[in-house]
Amino acid sequence: MLQRIEGGGITSPRGFLAGAAQAGIKHLGRYDLALVVSTVPASAAGVFTANRVQAAPVLVSKEHLAGGKARGFVVNSGCANACTGNKGLEDARAMAGEAARNTGCGPGEMLVASTGVIGVPLPLDRVLSGIRQAAAGLAAENGGLAARAIMTTDTFPKEIAVRFTLKGKTVTIGGMAKGAGMIHPDMATLLGFIGTDAAVTPRCLQVALKYAADRSFNMVTVDRDTSTNDSVFALANGLAGNDPVDDEHSEEYGLFQEALTAICVELARMVARDGEGATRLVEVRVVNAPTEADARAGARSIAASNLVKAAIFGRDANWGRIVCALGYSGAVFDPGLVDVYLGDLQVAKNGCGLAFDEERAAAILAGDTVAIRVDLKQGGASAVAWGCDLTYDYVKINGAYRT
Amino acid sequence: MLQRIEGGGITSPRGFLAGAAQAGIKHLGRYDLALVVSTVPASAAGVFTANRVQAAPVLVSKEHLAGGKARGFVVNSGCANACTGNKGLEDARAMAGEAARNTGCGPGEMLVASTGVIGVPLPLDRVLSGIRQAAAGLAAENGGLAARAIMTTDTFPKEIAVRFTLKGKTVTIGGMAKGAGMIHPDMATLLGFIGTDAAVTPRCLQVALKYAADRSFNMVTVDRDTSTNDSVFALANGLAGNDPVDDEHSEEYGLFQEALTAICVELARMVARDGEGATRLVEVRVVNAPTEADARAGARSIAASNLVKAAIFGRDANWGRIVCALGYSGAVFDPGLVDVYLGDLQVAKNGCGLAFDEERAAAILAGDTVAIRVDLKQGGASAVAWGCDLTYDYVKINGAYRT
Repeated sequence: MLQRIEGGGITSPRGFLAGAAQAGIKHLGRYDLALVVSTVPASAAGVFTANRVQAAPVLVSKEHLAGGKARGFVVNSGCANACTGNKGLEDARAMAGEAARNTGCGPGEMLVASTGVIGVPLPLDRVLSGIRQAAAGLAAENGGLAARAIMTTDTFPKEIAVRFTLKGKTVTIGGMAKGAGMIHPDMATLLGFIGTDAAVTPRCLQVALKYAADRSFNMVTVDRDTSTNDSVFALANGLAGNDPVDDEHSEEYGLFQEALTAICVELARMVARDGEGATRLVEVRVVNAPTEADARAGARSIAASNLVKAAIFGRDANWGRIVCALGYSGAVFDPGLVDVYLGDLQVAKNGCGLAFDEERAAAILAGDTVAIRVDLKQGGASAVAWGCDLTYDYVKINGAYRT
Repeated sequence: MLQRIEGGGITSPRGFLAGAAQAGIKHLGRYDLALVVSTVPASAAGVFTANRVQAAPVLVSKEHLAGGKARGFVVNSGCANACTGNKGLEDARAMAGEAARNTGCGPGEMLVASTGVIGVPLPLDRVLSGIRQAAAGLAAENGGLAARAIMTTDTFPKEIAVRFTLKGKTVTIGGMAKGAGMIHPDMATLLGFIGTDAAVTPRCLQVALKYAADRSFNMVTVDRDTSTNDSVFALANGLAGNDPVDDEHSEEYGLFQEALTAICVELARMVARDGEGATRLVEVRVVNAPTEADARAGARSIAASNLVKAAIFGRDANWGRIVCALGYSGAVFDPGLVDVYLGDLQVAKNGCGLAFDEERAAAILAGDTVAIRVDLKQGGASAVAWGCDLTYDYVKINGAYRT
């Protein structure tokens, strides 16, 4: 049903253009500024960090989203513009203003995001000059460049696009994200950007984005640190020509929500795989829980546990840590019923260990993707969370992040 | 007022004896079994892990505490006896029974604790033989040996004793604890053992222990993993001959609570300093918060943040991570009012960074104990949490814990 577009990204949908610049916010020779615009006004939605400390671009983007319409995003990496007081707010507004002036839209139609070190003011002149360069190079071919420009400690750009049919019209959704560290999104996450040429009302777009984020970005964790800058934005410009999706209970809405969730899940998996210092993607599935909330809490707690993560790095099948992390997650379950699987190897049954093949377990833990499945045998709800292993390199990267 | 007893520990109060054995649960040649008894019946209290998965010794000790009286503790390291089903419960009861038989008390008067790998059954024959050896060597001189026998990845034994005057009588409180990893106690903590010769009713002892644990062990974090085995026990045998402390509103109760809290805080600080792989003790103080709950949540969140911990390891004054961890802690505060200090160096004011001396900050972060103070300027409540840095050695230790 969903067809993945090879090499696709944020500019795969009709009417989306991107540009990027080396503004000199990060090291010389690295792209650090991205601009994405829709050639026509679009329905807009966003989900943001629940951290009480919110970065200036988060506050400004929330204001700009009030009307449910926008034309684009402007994003810098290398500086989070968080804990920067009134100057930070002025700087975020100046970014939106400069991006708007150079793309022929109003400043309130431009969403803003920043990522990087907290507590350092933006080098505004360089940022504004970068915005002008990026605007001059806007093109449908530059989606990949934009995905690269939003990276911080990410080791690869994260982008994806899918195509599907909505009431006889071919619709495309594309997206990009950045992750790496300070990743434990709550209500929203990291930086994610989604574009689609589907016609969707702002309200339906917002509901679908929240649904998708809760099942993707909000189930990713790298270090249990919820950032001050987490934001996911979606723009829907309607150029696919479909009858607008305007009813959350319609079949079309269901199709759209499914595609948007698939996009977000793939981006979220890329973020987990590329967690700071990570060598493995960890996928934790909690099944047969009493409620979805229990399944979600349990899966995320296991994926976030430093002890589980270090054991996976060391290829040590220390499954007791999995049950322990489930136990303090707040999830309701009966400890005497829990089954635990590493890949397809069962290691615990009814809360007690089995005499499993340690060598086979170590081989499973050495895999590129490590699947953990926990069966609570107490109901019909399930959830998946994504994380990574805890490695020496995580400590190294974060012992000297500002240098 | 409180006089610290040089070299004191669990057997410093009158009437407490300890013994230890090399039972062969851990590597050969390491003490791994401890027994502590009071020569007369004592008021008893305990606080335990809030993890939904509770180890067998936790369940058995809760039963034995129901009457508010006990005679001693029996503890093994090297195996947590958690996730071990009915056999685990039988084994924990067998430990209490063997300890009781060899010390002339009833099985219900003996409290049990275990620490080590989760999910592996106890080697019961060796444990029971160790209990007999430990009982044969019971002596007031063996408190230090017991403190050593409860260690897992701890690098030094943790013990303390203080003396003070209660209504004209000299009273002593002694204690020991073990920590190192899977340390993020909730409601209780790790393993802590307190003995006193003060006369205190079971109810007053329980209330005072809960108060002390909330301000000491429950404010320690090493890795945000709340264990299945956390337990703190206190025994008060009355041999000091003071009028029993029986009223929570009396002056004597206040004195006793203060002394018990001081003991627990010192043990908790030792646990934090000796966190797995730690090179520094981190003491986080949140002051002028609206409520104590806000101060506690904020302090503990900062102390638990992987990013804050890795920055301290790297001597990087990345204070934005401190404000970020405060922001997602759930504490209520105004981000525009927050001041942050490293030692006596102010690095942020009203939520924004100051141009501080980076070299001086790095020197402060290189200290044996790193003090972080966060002033919310919103009320009169405060709290302290203790943690440690996140190092390569934490990853190393926990990548191969079972080997």
